[in-house]
Amino acid sequence: MTHLSEFRGVSRSKLGQEVAELGRLGLVESGGQAPSRGGRPSNIVSLSNEVRYAGIEIGATSIAAGLTNGYLEVLDFVEEDADVHDGPDVVLGRAIELVRKLAARHPASTLAGVGVGVPGPVSFRDGRLVGAPLPMPGWERFPIRDHLARELKLRVTVDNDVNTMALGEAHAGAARGTNDFMYVKLGTGVGSAIVANGLLYRGADGCAGEISHTRIVDLQSLCSCGRHGCLNAEFGGSALTRQAIVAAQSRESVVLARLLEQNGTLTPADVGAASAAGDPYATQMIRRGGRLVGQALANLINVLNPSRIVIGGGLLGLGPLLLAEIKSAALEASTPLATSELAIVQTALGDRAGVIGAAWLASETLIDALASPSETGISRTA
Amino acid sequence: MTHLSEFRGVSRSKLGQEVAELGRLGLVESGGQAPSRGGRPSNIVSLSNEVRYAGIEIGATSIAAGLTNGYLEVLDFVEEDADVHDGPDVVLGRAIELVRKLAARHPASTLAGVGVGVPGPVSFRDGRLVGAPLPMPGWERFPIRDHLARELKLRVTVDNDVNTMALGEAHAGAARGTNDFMYVKLGTGVGSAIVANGLLYRGADGCAGEISHTRIVDLQSLCSCGRHGCLNAEFGGSALTRQAIVAAQSRESVVLARLLEQNGTLTPADVGAASAAGDPYATQMIRRGGRLVGQALANLINVLNPSRIVIGGGLLGLGPLLLAEIKSAALEASTPLATSELAIVQTALGDRAGVIGAAWLASETLIDALASPSETGISRTA
Repeated sequence: MTHLSEFRGVSRSKLGQEVAELGRLGLVESGGQAPSRGGRPSNIVSLSNEVRYAGIEIGATSIAAGLTNGYLEVLDFVEEDADVHDGPDVVLGRAIELVRKLAARHPASTLAGVGVGVPGPVSFRDGRLVGAPLPMPGWERFPIRDHLARELKLRVTVDNDVNTMALGEAHAGAARGTNDFMYVKLGTGVGSAIVANGLLYRGADGCAGEISHTRIVDLQSLCSCGRHGCLNAEFGGSALTRQAIVAAQSRESVVLARLLEQNGTLTPADVGAASAAGDPYATQMIRRGGRLVGQALANLINVLNPSRIVIGGGLLGLGPLLLAEIKSAALEASTPLATSELAIVQTALGDRAGVIGAAWLASETLIDALASPSETGISRTA
Repeated sequence: MTHLSEFRGVSRSKLGQEVAELGRLGLVESGGQAPSRGGRPSNIVSLSNEVRYAGIEIGATSIAAGLTNGYLEVLDFVEEDADVHDGPDVVLGRAIELVRKLAARHPASTLAGVGVGVPGPVSFRDGRLVGAPLPMPGWERFPIRDHLARELKLRVTVDNDVNTMALGEAHAGAARGTNDFMYVKLGTGVGSAIVANGLLYRGADGCAGEISHTRIVDLQSLCSCGRHGCLNAEFGGSALTRQAIVAAQSRESVVLARLLEQNGTLTPADVGAASAAGDPYATQMIRRGGRLVGQALANLINVLNPSRIVIGGGLLGLGPLLLAEIKSAALEASTPLATSELAIVQTALGDRAGVIGAAWLASETLIDALASPSETGISRTA
């Protein structure tokens, strides 16, 4: 929860401008005095549950925003189609509108911070997207954080979208209580995030978790990165769509051929529908995708020895067969010691994981801002 | 360095029995008063450089021990052949003898703790080896830490050998100053250790870093784990020895055939010697091994995004070609973002990395013991 507990030895007068403002609004509560350590008594300062955070999730084809209370419970949630290719001015303009809409619907609330997840590697320190492997015109090094902060006049924190989903699951979802876990998102592509020793691991350049170019035995499709054998080229929303169209045109899948004729196009959801309708080719596509993800995970299970893997993303809609295949392939190809206690489970938060995780980041950033750099004796009660 | 700095608000009387004893011996020094935070002045307490630690490195075929000062500089070092298959009673008995020998050589020293690296997965909390993938008769769940602590009457800390090597390189070697790195040991097998966010990452069951069963495209040899395609089955001291004997017997390598006739057996060092003597087959074996290690690392580079990879272990003696091939294969198969700042370098500490890291663990354990559980405001000066 969003407490500032054990805020040792810091008098209220030393706290930053933000907490003074929040205090003026009645959103910072004194929690009494900390246990004495022989020095002058210290105040425990808590953020009130009346504080509000906004979490924004920018996807390749959608944008979602949620308003949470101080405990990061989602009070309001909106989601719209969007195209990341429209560039940061357009897409971030939409995000700003959504935050303002949420704020307007809750006029008595005081928004204390905004967290944002974006679909690419993020320089967390800079609040910018850096080195996106897929074409995202205009986004490279665009000052996402500073732009939003200036427009919204709020503290903003930006992270990779899969990282925010992992943080959401850690705070309130399927990874609660675990210190060492992976979150795997099965969406347009396959992405992952790593929590090690209880801390999100972003890597040296902010691209930790990049599983989509894992090379797997026997894969031959050409990947967007220009190599053969990457997971990304064989599974994920983009790959499934491509494979479904080929299967329809070649008539290997009768059901997909009919759906293509009816709709003029195919989506991953059509593969799920075809499988549910008894089409063996579509079912085989799902099975194969699950096995490839499981094989890619197996090497990571051996090396990272997580206690849990949480699977999320839209492709879970393909049906329970996908998760079953991921599990069996991952377990089959890992060492017994690394899997004796391993649980592979699906998301508990669904499409809200990212928004909750982004709000969590906003709350963390606020707490960090409240603490002067020399005062690190802050912990959050669970 | 081994300082207890900023030991805030803890009076000396509250420190544990160990520090009282160390203080009596003149090994705990007052560093003056901490900067006031408005409370009662706090003492800064430092461990004297006159403190001594012992680091022990138990390998599959050797045992090494070092004595360090409080700054973890190695003052004395001994190494002997040993066989881990002799079981824990014999091997740990040898370790105890080595520690006593070192202590006897430095009669004025006060040994404050012992760190131990062992060649298998370790339950760090229990100080035991758990689930070793290779046969290590008698070691499974043997109470290594408690046995050594009872015999030596000292605080003992046990970790996986590759972890101790990584800690050594982080403290005093090729990984100084990096928060996100991997250490890769090329020995009888291939092992690795991961440091993420500045912390050693042991994983849920203590087996993080297990790279030897990474499955690689196009590998077909049967591994000791019963599967095909593991790195371990194709490269490492064991695999090289096996391959060298086959190459000698088939006369594909003339030089190895001659060495086998001369010596009746072959070692990985013979492969290095044959390559240095111009034998193309031996050179090819080294090249191929380096490429396989590089390919196994590539997927980890993508997912972990380390800033540095430190390569150590006896197989570096095969010559500079091995490291060159590892580098080129790893870089070729990784994403550009993950490698833009990546340095792949060799160990700076050689065969002393493990002993230094084990001594570092001993010093960390002592510092933790000095601090009461509620007092975590301890940092070590660099």
